[in-house]
Amino acid sequence: MPAKLNIAVLASGRGSNFEALALAATKDDYPARIVLLITDNPGAGAIRIADRMGIDRKIVDCGPSRGSMSVESSFKMKEYCTGKDVKLVCRAGFMRIVKGPLLDEFAGRMINIHPALLPSFKGLDAQKQALDYGVKYSGCTVHFVDRGIDTGPVIVQRIVPVKQNDTEEKLSARILAEEHVAYAEAVRLYAAGRLSVDGRRVLVDDPQGDR
Amino acid sequence: MPAKLNIAVLASGRGSNFEALALAATKDDYPARIVLLITDNPGAGAIRIADRMGIDRKIVDCGPSRGSMSVESSFKMKEYCTGKDVKLVCRAGFMRIVKGPLLDEFAGRMINIHPALLPSFKGLDAQKQALDYGVKYSGCTVHFVDRGIDTGPVIVQRIVPVKQNDTEEKLSARILAEEHVAYAEAVRLYAAGRLSVDGRRVLVDDPQGDR
Repeated sequence: MPAKLNIAVLASGRGSNFEALALAATKDDYPARIVLLITDNPGAGAIRIADRMGIDRKIVDCGPSRGSMSVESSFKMKEYCTGKDVKLVCRAGFMRIVKGPLLDEFAGRMINIHPALLPSFKGLDAQKQALDYGVKYSGCTVHFVDRGIDTGPVIVQRIVPVKQNDTEEKLSARILAEEHVAYAEAVRLYAAGRLSVDGRRVLVDDPQGDR
Repeated sequence: MPAKLNIAVLASGRGSNFEALALAATKDDYPARIVLLITDNPGAGAIRIADRMGIDRKIVDCGPSRGSMSVESSFKMKEYCTGKDVKLVCRAGFMRIVKGPLLDEFAGRMINIHPALLPSFKGLDAQKQALDYGVKYSGCTVHFVDRGIDTGPVIVQRIVPVKQNDTEEKLSARILAEEHVAYAEAVRLYAAGRLSVDGRRVLVDDPQGDR
């Protein structure tokens, strides 16, 4: 059994994707383990999940600029990650754009999940955007983080039907269930060394040849 | 059995979606019939299909401006349609933006099919756009035509997986098979009077309540 890959998760909210990843990583044959939670929100539910699961967690003051982060906080987050020998950073509902030293250090080694079938419905309130547009299917996308917003190469997508009596809450819940599966799958593929990037296309090493 | 709704199809190419619609409409219980094919291309394969199936067809010179149509040709197309008591106009690979008298007459009664999951990959070469972006799923969208390009309210979408060894040709063929199903379904719903539009959302009257 090769050594497990060390993962840090960045989260601002209740932490359901963090929890799904952490649960997936408790399995013996999962190739990654979550060694660190970093949050910018002292009230994040993710903190309680980390404490319950025995995962080290850090609260970082990212500065007053909403949606952005100070250089100091980016440096601090980078130091926390390298101090834990983190090899992959997973954004999971982290409400700030990552830039500065943290992005420089983890360029190509940071992934994010977005509750839509990118490139549709980038940015905030993706589920509401999908409802307002009137699409019949939406879903979720795990992708590498680049310097754009929700623009990086796509690793995994999962499809969710939009029903005509959907509210934003109902659709969000249906997508969230798929996010948990998609994120655990994407991290598994990355940690197992099965991903390569060709231009914008993410290829999966696939012994069965059925992708 | 209520009277069937009269449909005109606009096509510029081989006419595979025209053929799929025409075949669906040969069934006794299908609520629409194709009464007219209009093409801007004297070499369109769709013409041979119309002749084989005994469907009236008109070739209209839409003018030299590629992708657009002259006012005269739009007027002529409108006259052909109203002369056949057409109630719905279906674009099926028609390579010109419809405007002028034809659009005015059939506003809200014209639909189009696009080989992508709109709003992703509007415009030309949607399958290549999807491959280049690296999405894991694409598909097709039947939508009402408005004054934008591929922007109108969505009636039916169908999903197609993108495989990692896909070429544009392979992916296009896989999407095309779903286009045939999606278009026949959308026309069936429209002709049966089961569609209503609420803002951008197209609602389907659904006795089973499972949408």
